[in-house]
Amino acid sequence: MSNKLKVIPLGGLHEIGKNMTLLEYDDEIIIIDCGLTFPDDEMLGIDVVIPDFTYLKKKASKIKGVFLTHGHEDHIGALPYFLKQFEAPIYGLRLTLGLVELKLQEHQVMDRTELNVVKPGDVIHLKNFDVEFIRVSHSIPDAAALHIKTPYGSIVHTGDFKIDYTPIDGCLIDLNRFAELGRDGVTLLLADSTNVDRKGFTMSESTVGTTFDNIFRNHQDKRIFVASFASNVHRIQQIVHSCHLFNRKIAFSGRSMVNVTKVAMELGYLKVPENMIVDLFDIDKYPDNELVIVTTGSQGEPMAALSRMSKGEHRQLSLQPNDLVIISATPIPGNEKSVKKVIDKILQLGANVIYESLADVHVSGHAKEEELKLIHTLIKPKYFAPVHGEYTHLTHHGLLAESLGKSKSEVFIMENGKGLEIDDEGIRFTKKVPSGRTLIDGLGIGDVGNIVLRDRRILSQDGLMVVVLAIERESGKIVSGPEIISRGFVYVREAEDLFVDARNTLCHALSELEKDNVTEWATIKNTIRDTLKTFLYQETRRNPMILPIIMDV
Amino acid sequence: MSNKLKVIPLGGLHEIGKNMTLLEYDDEIIIIDCGLTFPDDEMLGIDVVIPDFTYLKKKASKIKGVFLTHGHEDHIGALPYFLKQFEAPIYGLRLTLGLVELKLQEHQVMDRTELNVVKPGDVIHLKNFDVEFIRVSHSIPDAAALHIKTPYGSIVHTGDFKIDYTPIDGCLIDLNRFAELGRDGVTLLLADSTNVDRKGFTMSESTVGTTFDNIFRNHQDKRIFVASFASNVHRIQQIVHSCHLFNRKIAFSGRSMVNVTKVAMELGYLKVPENMIVDLFDIDKYPDNELVIVTTGSQGEPMAALSRMSKGEHRQLSLQPNDLVIISATPIPGNEKSVKKVIDKILQLGANVIYESLADVHVSGHAKEEELKLIHTLIKPKYFAPVHGEYTHLTHHGLLAESLGKSKSEVFIMENGKGLEIDDEGIRFTKKVPSGRTLIDGLGIGDVGNIVLRDRRILSQDGLMVVVLAIERESGKIVSGPEIISRGFVYVREAEDLFVDARNTLCHALSELEKDNVTEWATIKNTIRDTLKTFLYQETRRNPMILPIIMDV
Repeated sequence: MSNKLKVIPLGGLHEIGKNMTLLEYDDEIIIIDCGLTFPDDEMLGIDVVIPDFTYLKKKASKIKGVFLTHGHEDHIGALPYFLKQFEAPIYGLRLTLGLVELKLQEHQVMDRTELNVVKPGDVIHLKNFDVEFIRVSHSIPDAAALHIKTPYGSIVHTGDFKIDYTPIDGCLIDLNRFAELGRDGVTLLLADSTNVDRKGFTMSESTVGTTFDNIFRNHQDKRIFVASFASNVHRIQQIVHSCHLFNRKIAFSGRSMVNVTKVAMELGYLKVPENMIVDLFDIDKYPDNELVIVTTGSQGEPMAALSRMSKGEHRQLSLQPNDLVIISATPIPGNEKSVKKVIDKILQLGANVIYESLADVHVSGHAKEEELKLIHTLIKPKYFAPVHGEYTHLTHHGLLAESLGKSKSEVFIMENGKGLEIDDEGIRFTKKVPSGRTLIDGLGIGDVGNIVLRDRRILSQDGLMVVVLAIERESGKIVSGPEIISRGFVYVREAEDLFVDARNTLCHALSELEKDNVTEWATIKNTIRDTLKTFLYQETRRNPMILPIIMDV
Repeated sequence: MSNKLKVIPLGGLHEIGKNMTLLEYDDEIIIIDCGLTFPDDEMLGIDVVIPDFTYLKKKASKIKGVFLTHGHEDHIGALPYFLKQFEAPIYGLRLTLGLVELKLQEHQVMDRTELNVVKPGDVIHLKNFDVEFIRVSHSIPDAAALHIKTPYGSIVHTGDFKIDYTPIDGCLIDLNRFAELGRDGVTLLLADSTNVDRKGFTMSESTVGTTFDNIFRNHQDKRIFVASFASNVHRIQQIVHSCHLFNRKIAFSGRSMVNVTKVAMELGYLKVPENMIVDLFDIDKYPDNELVIVTTGSQGEPMAALSRMSKGEHRQLSLQPNDLVIISATPIPGNEKSVKKVIDKILQLGANVIYESLADVHVSGHAKEEELKLIHTLIKPKYFAPVHGEYTHLTHHGLLAESLGKSKSEVFIMENGKGLEIDDEGIRFTKKVPSGRTLIDGLGIGDVGNIVLRDRRILSQDGLMVVVLAIERESGKIVSGPEIISRGFVYVREAEDLFVDARNTLCHALSELEKDNVTEWATIKNTIRDTLKTFLYQETRRNPMILPIIMDV
């Protein structure tokens, strides 16, 4: 075998989200997950961020399949964009592909796509790869790890996982299969690092159900709202269970909540007694103590249903003093302040709020330290490369592996684009291949880059000032202007003096140019820019964007 | 007595920061604190936010003094702006006024200001008010509560406080004085609510010193960086102590760190052994194990020294694998993600980081639940109004007072602008007076309002498109243009087709207008705006600001 096996992450390393890893051998490439992430604060106006697919462009014909570990956005969200450029069969468990279908229909790329539903234990056979799906626990049903047989031995990718001994759907993580693989020998383990810096063991999802029951019992006269991730079907199943116990109807609020619960019910993952579900438009027909509304917005997202309710801007729902809101989620880093704001607004409306720090209304979907130790110990891989996490998480996970007996030379902290290659000689880092981020803004894929973002940042800080001149083509003389128009700079009506002074300063500079017979547009524009910049900074300590425009007439 | 005593908060309620409360009786107004806060995410381009002083404008001559509880920005930061509009003597303990002086000099308003240094126990006598300073513990030396004798009895304002039985400067909170006041009778208590939702008792500042000693002991070969708030003089004193124990020199990095430590040393609050301090420019002369660098940037602020080091952009300091960085602070809500980013970057440079979740390198400066219970119990006021906090904190604090025996009618949740009035008849809420926020942007005070912010937001999301036409004055005919210029919208070089199509669409719409002999500029501008908006949304799903400009020639 002269070929190398390459393992190349295109996303998910040194970051949370847009997970995507590819395995390449000879003329075959398989892709594990194809996720998106949400923009940082500095990516102004960007909707979502996906991996850079450049590396795959010249190798499109090699792609033999995309294997999805589960149906979260950070694992499937980039698929529609991927499928606009590439063709490949998609493999995943049933709910995963149900959610993918929803997404592909929205993006109108469903027709051209082959979706292959597999079951845990199924193996997809390719020329160089055999891919096996292994059930794991996570905060969405049908989460899987992947076991891939390659010409250089077995690779296990855990996907996102936790270990839940009492899952509410009875579908246990297949620890026995991991044990078998460990016995037979695994060359490389790629494992989820999200919660590696948390001690102990993540509680079972079922503990949340007990909390819900208690809260429902203690608030029997209240109308109850529960905010949760739409994809957390187990969580919603438990809310349904509490509704059943306490004779309440349930309504779903928020587009993704309505869509995902519909798919989950159709596919049998969410079981709701007949007549329990009521439409949002009908909730006024039921007294407070017979209603539960399950809603999006647990992250304080400004456009989600819960935020709109908290601001009194929701069309069907208005929060009242007899309402209890349970926020059944924990803020993703960066969302802490928005969530707090929503809680504050709800309290101001007189309603009550229960959130994670007040009661056990949420558990994580990711394995903590002790769970990771168990997986490492069962699989006992020859080499280990942590995935899914910031650099901090990856290094912690590396140290965890070392604490279990791995040597430094057996642990590899990869980067996006810089993966591993394995051959008869051993294992080593690859050279860095194109990777990075592609920004999605509206319909544009990658048409917003650093220059556009820089301009947006400048505009967002101090606004802009447009200066227009009309110059006669033959004579080069100014025949109209300079006109000054500003936006986002200062409240114009109260700054008339400033604008008069700015115009006078400009006219003076332009007449100096005229004296010197300068007619080059570039020089005129630079003079406008420099003169105005200096003047405005001196007067206001602000640096708006200055946009000189010359019309020839 | 026919007059009412009014207690009016102009800031600090339903928010964290810009604390300012005034007491008004007859022809006298006294002001407690005059702080700033930092802008929310949506206040694009804003530097700081201060209270709205409108209510005071017509009452300027009544203002008899500003009484400062301590020297943090959220209590003194708005003073320079206040003093540009009003004249009033300032009262405060020594370090507080040392920091005020620094600030007033920067803003060049020191000349016109009278600063009166007082000591704990001192009383300032006015016609209707006697104001007494009482020592409390906080994360800055010289923090005080205020006891104000009024025509309607005593009012106690705690300022920011905690209870520290073992303060590192030996200056104990004067619990005995609070006990005396309680015995003699207090009409109204205004108390800090920042930590009311945390159970237990805030640890003593001195516990952090023990942690520092242990860390220094276990990292004797490393160069050590400590990031902390510049104003946390106690913290810095303890770092100095550990430096002394382990024979290290100390250097200060960051403008505010250098300035504040200088003032604190001059005034005797920070005691550093001779020859311990070295200049940042000289640190290369010392081996790693003999150096500690105390730096700003504990909140992940992008321009602070630590952030610049983490990005390799600091002129004097570059982090290396033999460096240990201690982040001796906790992220203020909203800063969690920036702090995590900085930690991640430092780890990538190979240096080590210790932060709060890894070791006890920080304690809060605010009283938790049990401390608040003690203060309420000692002071046993007739009425209680919580201050300093979001609505959530204020209501929690109200419930805490009720749990100690207050009735609902004795607890008042005020708002900014809506305070209390007390007279012979009793106590009640005032009508709401002008309050709110004044935005500071560069030299502009309040010249950025909702319109400017809205424009900045639109510009930040999708950029702008300027359309310029030249129209002949007499004929009303278009003689040049439409010219289209965009910024922050799309990378122009790769979107030439889009611009050609946009221009064609515009030309078509304009020629329709010409056919109909429409020459009103307003109609032409509206047509440009609507046509382009529809076209661009259809093509890109983006909504840039569209700015039509007509030049007449």
